[in-house]
Amino acid sequence: MKPESAGSLAVVGLGPGTSALRTPEATAALEAATDIIGYGTYVDLAGPFRPDQALHASDNRVELDRARHAFTLAAEGAHVAVVSSGDAGIFAMAAAVLEALDGADEPAWRRVALRILPGVSAANAAAALAGAPLGHDFCVLSLSDNLKPWTEIERRLALVCEADLVLALYNPRSKARPHQFGAALALIRGHRAADTVVVLGRDVGRPAEQVGVTTLAALRPEQVDMRTVVIIGSSRTRRIERPDGGAWVYTPRWY
Amino acid sequence: MKPESAGSLAVVGLGPGTSALRTPEATAALEAATDIIGYGTYVDLAGPFRPDQALHASDNRVELDRARHAFTLAAEGAHVAVVSSGDAGIFAMAAAVLEALDGADEPAWRRVALRILPGVSAANAAAALAGAPLGHDFCVLSLSDNLKPWTEIERRLALVCEADLVLALYNPRSKARPHQFGAALALIRGHRAADTVVVLGRDVGRPAEQVGVTTLAALRPEQVDMRTVVIIGSSRTRRIERPDGGAWVYTPRWY
Repeated sequence: MKPESAGSLAVVGLGPGTSALRTPEATAALEAATDIIGYGTYVDLAGPFRPDQALHASDNRVELDRARHAFTLAAEGAHVAVVSSGDAGIFAMAAAVLEALDGADEPAWRRVALRILPGVSAANAAAALAGAPLGHDFCVLSLSDNLKPWTEIERRLALVCEADLVLALYNPRSKARPHQFGAALALIRGHRAADTVVVLGRDVGRPAEQVGVTTLAALRPEQVDMRTVVIIGSSRTRRIERPDGGAWVYTPRWY
Repeated sequence: MKPESAGSLAVVGLGPGTSALRTPEATAALEAATDIIGYGTYVDLAGPFRPDQALHASDNRVELDRARHAFTLAAEGAHVAVVSSGDAGIFAMAAAVLEALDGADEPAWRRVALRILPGVSAANAAAALAGAPLGHDFCVLSLSDNLKPWTEIERRLALVCEADLVLALYNPRSKARPHQFGAALALIRGHRAADTVVVLGRDVGRPAEQVGVTTLAALRPEQVDMRTVVIIGSSRTRRIERPDGGAWVYTPRWY
């Protein structure tokens, strides 16, 4: 294969779901792609596609295989879009694609024109529906211990609680480890007041979208699953009652 | 004034600059607005506008005045767009708008149809240009002590360094406090290795866009100003050399 034949690879952040939150740059990359690779749900979300575009949908747990497949096709001259929900760079496919590149001794892969296209992340979209809970210093943590020891997750949680950062938690609770979210919650409750404001955003940007505002004391693990982004306020995060019975949440710009 | 006369207020995240990163939802809100309010630079960025749309550009330091002006117009029936660069909810106008609402005893303001529209944040866009430095646990901190004591900033920095989070730093260095970024850097260097990967994104999404990759040891405060997002890697953040002499940066999904 000649170097000239190298194609391109765009890692596309679709935004949280609705095309109203997808960037024109992402839409253009999807239109230009000859091959679309991704977890089945996200390929469906990214469509519809034309008959001349090849779709390669796969299971959610094979990020590295998917990334290698993308480089293989692109090195052969294809224009590949790897799709990811939210922002491709936040707990999503961009890191897996670079991990695949880093771990492979494939000069042809290095010649692929690679671009990472950012998007509106799930945390940003959930925050906006509730107001501005991320309006001041915050952190974004994954509670999944698939790739990180649980002891390290607890250590990080304790430190960011001490730093009084707002917490945006991804992958908070799976069927495989339902008890861990309860353990995280117990730890956080040891640092923050019972009336700390909590935002739950589920299926944000999708037809089943739900956003709720509660307190740290009232939050029950059963309200949370892998499709929920959990935002736990700092000591300064406030709520404003809305005339419709709901609430706005914001973290002031001052401390 | 009758309750029925209440207008609407959309706080619009424009994304980092280029319209290729602006959501269709944001574009639609700008088109529907009768009045556009914002810092002059952002109003320019959001345009062009039609002759029937009123532009209210102001100085960057008067967020609360701007927010109150927006509610006053909307309560009179206007359809107001308050524009903010990046994501409106991240160190931007959404928190100021909710602070204005919270602090005012104005029932008419509560009846305004308020929406916060998320966008691609500056940190997300800078990260994407460099690869996926925010691919694992990270925090977003402002180094400005306009609204937060410097001792609190130092305390937070020490804790998030101990938690080994990637750091995305906003408002890193202003002309009014040029020495503070050096103090922050000294603190971070006490926690992280000299070869820690650092990404500098300046004017991301704008014509003068610059993205650089360096190390914690080599980083000089003079490379940084208020238009720079500084991303400091964790102990796990890696760089991959590009054939063109640049580098990709990513933080692996595993720990």
